[in-house]
Amino acid sequence: MEFQKALELFKKNNETMGAYGHAMGVMYYDMDTVAPKNAFKGFGKTIGILSEIQYRLSVNDENFEIIDTLMAHKDELDFITRREVEEAAHDLDMMRKIPIEEYTAYRVLLTEAREKWLEAKATNNYELFEPVLAQIVDYNRRIAGYIDPSVSPYDFWLNEFERGASVKMLDEYFAKVKDALVPLIHSIKEKGDVIDTSFAELSYPLEGQRKFSDYLMKVLTINKDDCSIGETEHPFTTHFNKHDVRITTHYHDSVTNNMYSVIHEGGHALYELNTGDDIIGSPLASGASTGIHESQSRLYENIIGRSEEFIELIFPKLKELFPEQLKDVSAHMFYLAVNKAQPSLIRIEADELTYSMHVLIRYELEKRLMDGSLSTKELPAEWNRLYKEYLGVDVPDDTHGCLQDSHWSSGTLGYFPSYSLGSAYGAQIVAHMKKELDIAALVKENKIGVIVEWLTEKIYKYGMLLRPDELIKNCCGEEFNPQYYVDYLTEKFKKIYNL
Amino acid sequence: MEFQKALELFKKNNETMGAYGHAMGVMYYDMDTVAPKNAFKGFGKTIGILSEIQYRLSVNDENFEIIDTLMAHKDELDFITRREVEEAAHDLDMMRKIPIEEYTAYRVLLTEAREKWLEAKATNNYELFEPVLAQIVDYNRRIAGYIDPSVSPYDFWLNEFERGASVKMLDEYFAKVKDALVPLIHSIKEKGDVIDTSFAELSYPLEGQRKFSDYLMKVLTINKDDCSIGETEHPFTTHFNKHDVRITTHYHDSVTNNMYSVIHEGGHALYELNTGDDIIGSPLASGASTGIHESQSRLYENIIGRSEEFIELIFPKLKELFPEQLKDVSAHMFYLAVNKAQPSLIRIEADELTYSMHVLIRYELEKRLMDGSLSTKELPAEWNRLYKEYLGVDVPDDTHGCLQDSHWSSGTLGYFPSYSLGSAYGAQIVAHMKKELDIAALVKENKIGVIVEWLTEKIYKYGMLLRPDELIKNCCGEEFNPQYYVDYLTEKFKKIYNL
Repeated sequence: MEFQKALELFKKNNETMGAYGHAMGVMYYDMDTVAPKNAFKGFGKTIGILSEIQYRLSVNDENFEIIDTLMAHKDELDFITRREVEEAAHDLDMMRKIPIEEYTAYRVLLTEAREKWLEAKATNNYELFEPVLAQIVDYNRRIAGYIDPSVSPYDFWLNEFERGASVKMLDEYFAKVKDALVPLIHSIKEKGDVIDTSFAELSYPLEGQRKFSDYLMKVLTINKDDCSIGETEHPFTTHFNKHDVRITTHYHDSVTNNMYSVIHEGGHALYELNTGDDIIGSPLASGASTGIHESQSRLYENIIGRSEEFIELIFPKLKELFPEQLKDVSAHMFYLAVNKAQPSLIRIEADELTYSMHVLIRYELEKRLMDGSLSTKELPAEWNRLYKEYLGVDVPDDTHGCLQDSHWSSGTLGYFPSYSLGSAYGAQIVAHMKKELDIAALVKENKIGVIVEWLTEKIYKYGMLLRPDELIKNCCGEEFNPQYYVDYLTEKFKKIYNL
Repeated sequence: MEFQKALELFKKNNETMGAYGHAMGVMYYDMDTVAPKNAFKGFGKTIGILSEIQYRLSVNDENFEIIDTLMAHKDELDFITRREVEEAAHDLDMMRKIPIEEYTAYRVLLTEAREKWLEAKATNNYELFEPVLAQIVDYNRRIAGYIDPSVSPYDFWLNEFERGASVKMLDEYFAKVKDALVPLIHSIKEKGDVIDTSFAELSYPLEGQRKFSDYLMKVLTINKDDCSIGETEHPFTTHFNKHDVRITTHYHDSVTNNMYSVIHEGGHALYELNTGDDIIGSPLASGASTGIHESQSRLYENIIGRSEEFIELIFPKLKELFPEQLKDVSAHMFYLAVNKAQPSLIRIEADELTYSMHVLIRYELEKRLMDGSLSTKELPAEWNRLYKEYLGVDVPDDTHGCLQDSHWSSGTLGYFPSYSLGSAYGAQIVAHMKKELDIAALVKENKIGVIVEWLTEKIYKYGMLLRPDELIKNCCGEEFNPQYYVDYLTEKFKKIYNL
């Protein structure tokens, strides 16, 4: 195939694939947010048909020829197109190797899995979800085997979500984090229950919480014309382009759950809202990796959102919306409450310090599900055992145990570790940002936009043009180093607990 | 092409086209309900790409051969498939004749038109919308000309929305309705302002109104697992299959706007929710025509929803939700208030008696826009003149005038008359239903489900298997006769106003 012809077809194909991705993305969003419950059957059928069309559009001889031609002429391509071609070659290599029947059947299974998980969680009935989860694990193993039989299935998926990650790397990473944090968690536990959180656990009316969400979006400098906020069981962020980002939240009685969901998802949204205009419409107009994405959500959620300056900034608004609940509460008391370190059951409600232990448990379980040393039937018991061992908590039921997260029901195994890696990236990024910006002052003065701009220049604008390791280097001038994370947590929590 | 091969390809094609229709339908719904404002650009691009793909899937030599083959073997097809083939042949004939560039450009234009209309209505700025409307009229004329140059463009579109309708037929129909109703409206006007509606115009809190919507859905026997309720500027109903129907409403200060939006859209929804199981997944699983659809929405809204028995049924709930607003109000007073006949500005808020005058005005304007005797620039003045002449009201601004409805912005000219025809069908259907059911007693006893079942047997289950005229004959045992409508209104309003 002629180079120019290949280039033209490649661009056209990107547009078409983008349209399918957009349409199916909106359908998933709709299904998760506003669709009536019984819509799921028709939804699954349509997703099945469109996925198959998308697959055939991608996996065919002409497309192989297009990609092969362009890969052979890589040096003649501009930087953006070259990166598009490289990513397409990577994806196509995957798609080429998965039989279409399995691919389509798997997509249909995932629709069913989401329904089953929602029902299982609502009724505390793991048995309802277990057979589907077993199939998902099996699909994940088989698919990994089709694509790269030279590595273990879990290594394959870890590397898919975060290039460079592996069982070896994560075993070492988690060992380091565990060694540093467990003694700290232990010291804090010995101090006893010194932080009052009773006011945070009161009932905060829904209407006020919704208003507070809108306020937080403004503080984060998120334009509502570009980013909506919906409500789902499990909060998430999705995007179709930089002018169409969707975050969701879940309202509990306590105000802090929703507050930190909005800030966390808002961090994901800020990343997508600020990709460069030069990659609008490109498949590269998306975050570089799940780890880098989580670095941003957790940076806003924890490093900024749980700083004393941030609480001082937003506290007047909280008082205005919930005068009764907060009548005897100061900003400092609120700051301490949202930073209370206490082993708990639910990952997304976990404090900043113990959070990585939740991730570690999931990492260990996934590793064993994937290598076959743990069955899905044994999962709940093992989940509960590890929660007792690492966090000292008793899991009362599967709804508050192994059914709490949506990830496995959506087919992702190997994603959880990126949450913890993200926190570590975030701490490193902020350590370097501090050399150029007075972060505390900016937050205090409601100028988070300046921080967003800095991150846009260093990270957001690149989309997927740079890989995770290149971004860290570009931003920090050095390789990834988890020491910043350990230091940050140690300093912060020693101060809070006077250790 | 061999018959069996053609049949197989036809079924497969229906599935694929259904998937595209479903995905784009969800995208439109999303755009109209929850998408952030700036999503419209990416939305328009994707809709453009998918429409073109859908068009090419439909308009190609193989598909022509499939349809031609099946039409030649019509007698060998089962009833459902034969009707599917007939409808496909009709649609394909249209698609074959529209140049693809025009078709795609028109779809993209409609996305822009919706945005412009929303903004024009919000800011009372018709000039913003006028150039787009001019293009829409032009497209409608050209498209009609491509398909059937032997009839006038407006006749073409009237017949598309309601097979059998034409300028000649509607000129006669509206003359008959006008002759009967104008004297009645005149007599009522002479009686003066005898019905108190002040309590209906109070402010009814949103939270209570949302609860009341849920209650109304239950009374109408709509299962929320199959049908959601959203919020939009202009209420509408859409459906993707009988287990995924969406209605929307708009909350005003007064409780009656939303109340009758929900019942009206609920009527559309009941039709779609009760199509036969034998046509699930078929392109025929949809209402027979806009006129028949409107006959159902307006039957529930007016003939049932504005009957004294219905008000008696729902009034306790209203009192419970709005005790303050309704503290000195009886069910009979509420019944009179929702039946007050008074010429007004807004079609969807118009009373049952004057409603057809609003439709008549739109019919006359559309007719002249389409035959070129009225320009889009002249439209607002002419709109205002006709409102003064037929209804005696002064239009204060275009937001409350020619910008009030979404129809033209979504490209439909020729649709409005079906609203009035629908009312006339509805009156005839109910007149025949009364021979078999005690409608008043059923409504009083909260057994609207029995009425829904009767209509399901006579109309809903058929979807598009029968055409409008066949359905009326099937249901009533006679041809369409507008006399029932005139008689029903005359009797009802003479009683209410003691004439």
